[in-house]
Amino acid sequence: MRFSPDEAHELARRAAMRAGAREDVADSLAKAVVSAERAGKKTVGFAHLIDYLHAFAEGRIDGKATPVVTYPAPALIRVDAQQGIAQLGFDLAFEELMARAKAHGVATFQQHGSYTAGELGYYTRRLAGRGLLAMAVSNAPALMTTAESRKPILGTNPLSFAAPLENGGPLVFDQASSATAFVNVRHAAQAGEAIPEGWALDGAGEPTTDSREALNGALLAFGGARGANIALMVEVLAAGLTGANWSLDAPSFVQGGQSPSVGLCVVAWDAAAGFGTRLQTHIERLAQCGMHIPGRRGSLDELDIPDDIIEQLER
Amino acid sequence: MRFSPDEAHELARRAAMRAGAREDVADSLAKAVVSAERAGKKTVGFAHLIDYLHAFAEGRIDGKATPVVTYPAPALIRVDAQQGIAQLGFDLAFEELMARAKAHGVATFQQHGSYTAGELGYYTRRLAGRGLLAMAVSNAPALMTTAESRKPILGTNPLSFAAPLENGGPLVFDQASSATAFVNVRHAAQAGEAIPEGWALDGAGEPTTDSREALNGALLAFGGARGANIALMVEVLAAGLTGANWSLDAPSFVQGGQSPSVGLCVVAWDAAAGFGTRLQTHIERLAQCGMHIPGRRGSLDELDIPDDIIEQLER
Repeated sequence: MRFSPDEAHELARRAAMRAGAREDVADSLAKAVVSAERAGKKTVGFAHLIDYLHAFAEGRIDGKATPVVTYPAPALIRVDAQQGIAQLGFDLAFEELMARAKAHGVATFQQHGSYTAGELGYYTRRLAGRGLLAMAVSNAPALMTTAESRKPILGTNPLSFAAPLENGGPLVFDQASSATAFVNVRHAAQAGEAIPEGWALDGAGEPTTDSREALNGALLAFGGARGANIALMVEVLAAGLTGANWSLDAPSFVQGGQSPSVGLCVVAWDAAAGFGTRLQTHIERLAQCGMHIPGRRGSLDELDIPDDIIEQLER
Repeated sequence: MRFSPDEAHELARRAAMRAGAREDVADSLAKAVVSAERAGKKTVGFAHLIDYLHAFAEGRIDGKATPVVTYPAPALIRVDAQQGIAQLGFDLAFEELMARAKAHGVATFQQHGSYTAGELGYYTRRLAGRGLLAMAVSNAPALMTTAESRKPILGTNPLSFAAPLENGGPLVFDQASSATAFVNVRHAAQAGEAIPEGWALDGAGEPTTDSREALNGALLAFGGARGANIALMVEVLAAGLTGANWSLDAPSFVQGGQSPSVGLCVVAWDAAAGFGTRLQTHIERLAQCGMHIPGRRGSLDELDIPDDIIEQLER
């Protein structure tokens, strides 16, 4: 079925409220879900909203939580999400984060105590849409391992970066530190499909191409030791600097009644006058050389949501 | 031959001055070279100093340049390195960067117009040694390509991250966005050795294991599309945000008479009380799970410098 962004927002908002979310929580989440869908990121759009609905109902998200926002230093915003969603704390802090980055040259948002962050590109894309450069990192319950350790010790720990361009959508990427995102393995398992070598280990710590075995094992970091270092940086910033649960200690985001209580760390840099124009010109040169430039697409104005997802939303 | 850190500093300082560096430039560079050697990073220690000596003599570094340091916003330090070395601008700004990060929660150092940055871990290790978390990125003349583009379009664009620990040296890594650092290919070419598949393309844009062919071609990004995105983030921050030459436009750092005039961007975060203790405890758990934790080693107190390098220093 096809929806306008406003209709899709209403669909998401009502579903969240039925699952127990307070109106402002539902609204904040719906905004993020629709933004992901409009950016073409379906696996972290409505498909992922289903995880949130179960989590509200089963107690992994406190749908009535009010984030506590504090300003310990002029360019630092700290948020305790109080076991709620990650998006509401960011919404409450957004205008201050913008203003402080512009006033000080850089500012940082550090949140702990939330459910997993959803589409990470949502946070950086919003800042780049307002003319800032942004990097965001978040951690998550341990699902990933590195070459030497054969059990899950880190989250898939995504990193997103965005920068404003003169024309159209910003330059933006949002990628897991694992060779693939967890949702891709889950999707393959649901469809009964194999996964490529290098994506995952099975429950015994051995390499596997069986997606169902992989769900009992661990994802592998991308790019060997260098990718594992990126995952570690994400962990130290998203869980260490924010004071959130380490990935190793975070309760599951798909079962049980406890919040993962993980972290989100964002850095926003003010850009000098003319930045977007200069970057636009250079990005076009790189694209002419054949380089793939992530992001830059506009927002979709019509969203196609599969019937089975709508069914689950309306349950 | 073996040297104490002080003796090694004198050796490097005198060599730089003989090549045309002013005393403060020579001192700043010697400090970075000895720090790299003490951290066990020999390829970016005295071996790399030789590149600097040629660059002073041939005009790629202005050995008499005085960096211009400005403070456009409270948490932002901008430096125009004036075609000199990268290290002097950082030295001049270091105490202010520390103070501003502590006062504002985060601060950023943005430098353009310098020679390549040398060991990037030097910058983050120093900040972590004083209790801050730090990320540093720098760009460099184009030597690297991505899967789709078969010619050099980006520098090897390293990223370094460091965080303070309660005991001993900080957690720190410093890695190129290429599958291997340029110096490793050059070293293999000098030794007449082959390089592994996946490191480089030859001058025609085809994969090669011949290190000499690779020097005429391009290095490959690590970890496929994800690694290429990291390289792009480094480029946008190190060259875009700072206003430095894009890697594609940067003159060579090993030949010709022009400065590469590239950029260095550092973010320094203040850490909450108890951060180092909490990270120390967790890092030990990860290490027990078999994860490789980068850095953490102490500084060497005796430096072994090969005779052929000493000969070149004293030339």
